[in-house]
Order: sequence, then C-alpha cells, then structure tokens
Amino acid sequence: MGVYPIVLSQTKFTHQDNLDYPFEERGLQFGDGIYEVIRIYDGNYYLFTEHVDRFFRSADAIRLELPFEKEQLKTLLHDLLKQNNMKNDGIVYMQATRGSAPRDHVFPVGVEANVYAYVKDLPRNLSNLENGISVITKEDIRWKKCYIKSLNLLPNVLAKQEAKENNCYEALLHEDGLVTECSSSNAYLVKDGKIYTHPATSRILHGCVRMAVERFANELGIPFIEEAFTLADIQSADEMFLSSSTSEVLPILNVDRKPVNNGIPGEITRKLQDAYQKDANISNRKTAQQ
Amino acid sequence: MGVYPIVLSQTKFTHQDNLDYPFEERGLQFGDGIYEVIRIYDGNYYLFTEHVDRFFRSADAIRLELPFEKEQLKTLLHDLLKQNNMKNDGIVYMQATRGSAPRDHVFPVGVEANVYAYVKDLPRNLSNLENGISVITKEDIRWKKCYIKSLNLLPNVLAKQEAKENNCYEALLHEDGLVTECSSSNAYLVKDGKIYTHPATSRILHGCVRMAVERFANELGIPFIEEAFTLADIQSADEMFLSSSTSEVLPILNVDRKPVNNGIPGEITRKLQDAYQKDANISNRKTAQQ
Repeated sequence: MGVYPIVLSQTKFTHQDNLDYPFEERGLQFGDGIYEVIRIYDGNYYLFTEHVDRFFRSADAIRLELPFEKEQLKTLLHDLLKQNNMKNDGIVYMQATRGSAPRDHVFPVGVEANVYAYVKDLPRNLSNLENGISVITKEDIRWKKCYIKSLNLLPNVLAKQEAKENNCYEALLHEDGLVTECSSSNAYLVKDGKIYTHPATSRILHGCVRMAVERFANELGIPFIEEAFTLADIQSADEMFLSSSTSEVLPILNVDRKPVNNGIPGEITRKLQDAYQKDANISNRKTAQQ
Repeated sequence: MGVYPIVLSQTKFTHQDNLDYPFEERGLQFGDGIYEVIRIYDGNYYLFTEHVDRFFRSADAIRLELPFEKEQLKTLLHDLLKQNNMKNDGIVYMQATRGSAPRDHVFPVGVEANVYAYVKDLPRNLSNLENGISVITKEDIRWKKCYIKSLNLLPNVLAKQEAKENNCYEALLHEDGLVTECSSSNAYLVKDGKIYTHPATSRILHGCVRMAVERFANELGIPFIEEAFTLADIQSADEMFLSSSTSEVLPILNVDRKPVNNGIPGEITRKLQDAYQKDANISNRKTAQQ
C-alpha cells in the first residue's frame, strides 16, 4: 500500500520518483509549513471543502502564501485521483512549506512555497471501529497554537510512540488535568446523555471530523457541549470516543488501563459511528458491527 | 557566501549536488529531528565539545539513535573543514532526523537516522557587536521542551520575522511577563553589577555561548544569577545583552523602542565581549570597538 505513482508538485503532476527536496528547505530545517490529510472512500474525498478551507486557514495563520486559489487546489486534488485512477479507500496527504532557501529564521524573499500532495490506499480499520481502542494519558507539551495544522509535530510523535509502547492506540493529552485532545485526534466524553469536548480554541486542532460529529449530534438531538473535561471526570464517564480523518469515530474503552463503561462501546458512540457512515456514503458496507 | 561544495551525508562525504531528500522524510513531515550550529573562526571550531555534547543530548531527548559515536562525529566534522579547505569565519550546520519512511507518527522500525552537515562562510557582524541591536517583546508560545534543539522551529521563525518587520534584530520572548530567552539566542539583564538570566530549565535552550558567558562572569568576578527577570525589570535595567553562536555577545540597546541604559552598550557587556574574543582566540583582530 505505497504511494500512487502520480503526485502533485506545485501545480503540476509528476512521477513520485521526480519529487525530492534540497537540504536547505524550510520544511526540513524549521518545520516551517502546514499540511492536511483528507479521507477518501471509493475514490471520493470526504469532508473535502472543510479540509481545503482549513489548509488555507493554516497557511494564513503562519503567513504562508500558497501558489493557488482554493478552487484551483480543489481541481488539482480531483485530478490527482483521476491521474492515478484511484477508486479505493485511502487518503491524500498534502503539505506546503515556505520554500527552498539558504537557512535563516526570517522569511525568504521572493521564494515560492513548496507544495506537494500524494495519494495512498488506506482501508478502514473495522476491528478498531467495532472493538474500540485504548489510550494512555500524557501531559500536553505542545506549543500554544495547536489550531494550526503545522509540520511541528515532534511532541505528537513522541506521545503517539509512547502510546504504542504501552499497547495503546493514542495518547490523551491534558494540561494540568484538563483534557485537550489526543496526539492526532480529538477526544470526547459522554456523561448523562451529553457529549463534552474541549472548546475549539488555540489549544486544539479544529478537526474536520469534529465539526461533523457536532453536526451529527445536533441532528440526533444529543447535546454537544464545548467544555473541557478533566482526567478526574473520566472515572465516572459513561462513554468516551475520539475522532479523526483516518480513524473516523472510535470508542475509547480503556484509559491508562482502567476501563470506561466496563470496556464496552457506548450507545451514543455507536449512533455517531452510524451517522458518520451515512454521511460518508459508506453505510451500505458490511462492517463487523452490523 | 554559499555552502562549501563538500557536505557530510551520514558518515560519508559527498558533493552538495548529491544531497537531497525524499518527500516522505520525517524531518520534512514531522520536524522529527534535531540540529546544531557551531561557530568557526579562521577555520577552527569554537565551543566544539559543548555543541557536539548538546547534539547527543538533544538526540537522546527525542530518543533518536545517531549513526555514530561522539568521537567519530568530531573526526567527521574536522574532516569536513579539511575537505573544503575551509580557513575562514563561518558556521557548520548539522541535523539528524528519524529517517525516511512512509508517513506515520510512531517511530519507523529498522530505519536509520538521516544526518547531514555543511559549512558556510559567515563573517562576524562588527557593526552589531559595536553598536548593539534592538528587540521587540513577544509572548513565548513554544512547546515545553525548549532545551531540546529540535527542528520544530515555527514559533521561532514567526517571532524572528516579526522582529525583522519592526526593524529589530530579535524577539525577546516572555511567559506572562517572565522573560525566557530570544527566538534564537539567550537573553540577559544587568542590574547593580549582577547578571540575571532565566535558569537552564526546559523552558530555554541551554546555549553553548550562555555556558561560556557564565564562565567569563565567574572569571571576572561578576555574579551570574540564574533567575528570570520580568518585562517590568527592563525599565530599570543597567544593561541588557543576548548571546548565541552566530551573534556572540550583543548589546541590547532598545526593547520595544524604549532605550536601555540610554541606548549605550554597558560596561559589563563590553567586558564579556572582550572575554569572548580572548576565549575564541580572536582578540588580536581589529574590531570597531578597539
């Protein structure tokens, strides 16, 4: 399941073998860039506009000028799927950096952003969707502008690696006990029929699936309360789940080896998973839970 | 003043034209790596052991295994100067990332770190050393492990760019009014004959020149107090200065357009500049201040 051969480089398509970067590149030396991952089902993008909008918002937030307008990028991303005849479940990864220039913290002058995008197959993880996952808790040591989907991902990498070494899928991050989100997904707690999650401040990434979850909750008449929950709240949680573009909506069944809801996926979580499948036009698929 | 032709790639030397990076590289996609910049005077490294030690400390802190031991790296760095017949004032830049692998937050298995180093000329900025520089103040929005010299430099980039746009050399960072350091240098305040600077906690980079400044202060009998000063303290400061490997010891003469010590470099700052020149074996040079 490697990268499809045709990749986007700036506003042109090329073979992946032709895409490489010089050693003085601002992504490579400063993490001076932003990215997006968009889910693909049956060769169609899901939450496409939301992701493209966020890509431009992130670029604005770091004052990065992209070499295209939104509509042009959308056309290029659609063409990327066509060029590769991509019809499967997968993802597109795209990033933009502040270009190639002699190393200096200040922005280079007259240098165009470097942009690339590529497509990969990525089957849905039916086992995780059905059986849920476990998380560890970790202090949130990230910078103060987590709403920017930047390439400065070292704290996320370290947290996720520690989760893996503890046989967990994710690390649930907290600041002084207040839960922000996971290392690469948003986190939610259900109590007395209400969904709680950290407000969309600069402390968390404003997930595209998070926005969809809010919409599903509204449609289902489930209160969606943007209020951070605490590590202590977890002990009496009725349900917990996370969301991201690659993970969808996943039941969290254990936190630091202690079960949530006796380790059983909750009713509201299941409703949101169903709503997700309907919204993504994949509700006709056979999954383990059906 | 470009990059010297011969560069270090892993443990081999190659021409810079042969050094490039694939698009799925953990430096480029996660900033998952560390770096060092070492000052060179007349073709000799300054504070060499300190920098190499810190490179290994940073690698340890992000759990990155380097493809060489300290002594081997030292030999390679010396050879890099010889291969290029480098006899000038300059810098070496070196970085190590967690290698090239399909994108995934967790560490790749069985993948070697990518390492490179290159040399550039960089004359001393005699005008700045003599006349001092100005800074703006900015909130410190960085992550909580600033002692690691990591490639996650986006907040530093944004702060330095803002400084430049305000005709300043640096941004003085603070957390709730408590000064940490500058975007790419350590910061100091002198009051009543004593030097104050943020303690070497995880909130600041432990500068190699900062260590040298402490040593100079001890030799000169000037108290070196590791205690953070505040933005309010600046109003009554006798002197301020910053230090870094590329900047040396620079008088800070204005903070947010307000003069420090009537905009005149202070006596202790000058003593430390002299001590630096002696320590780096460049005290025989004609500089503007002599």
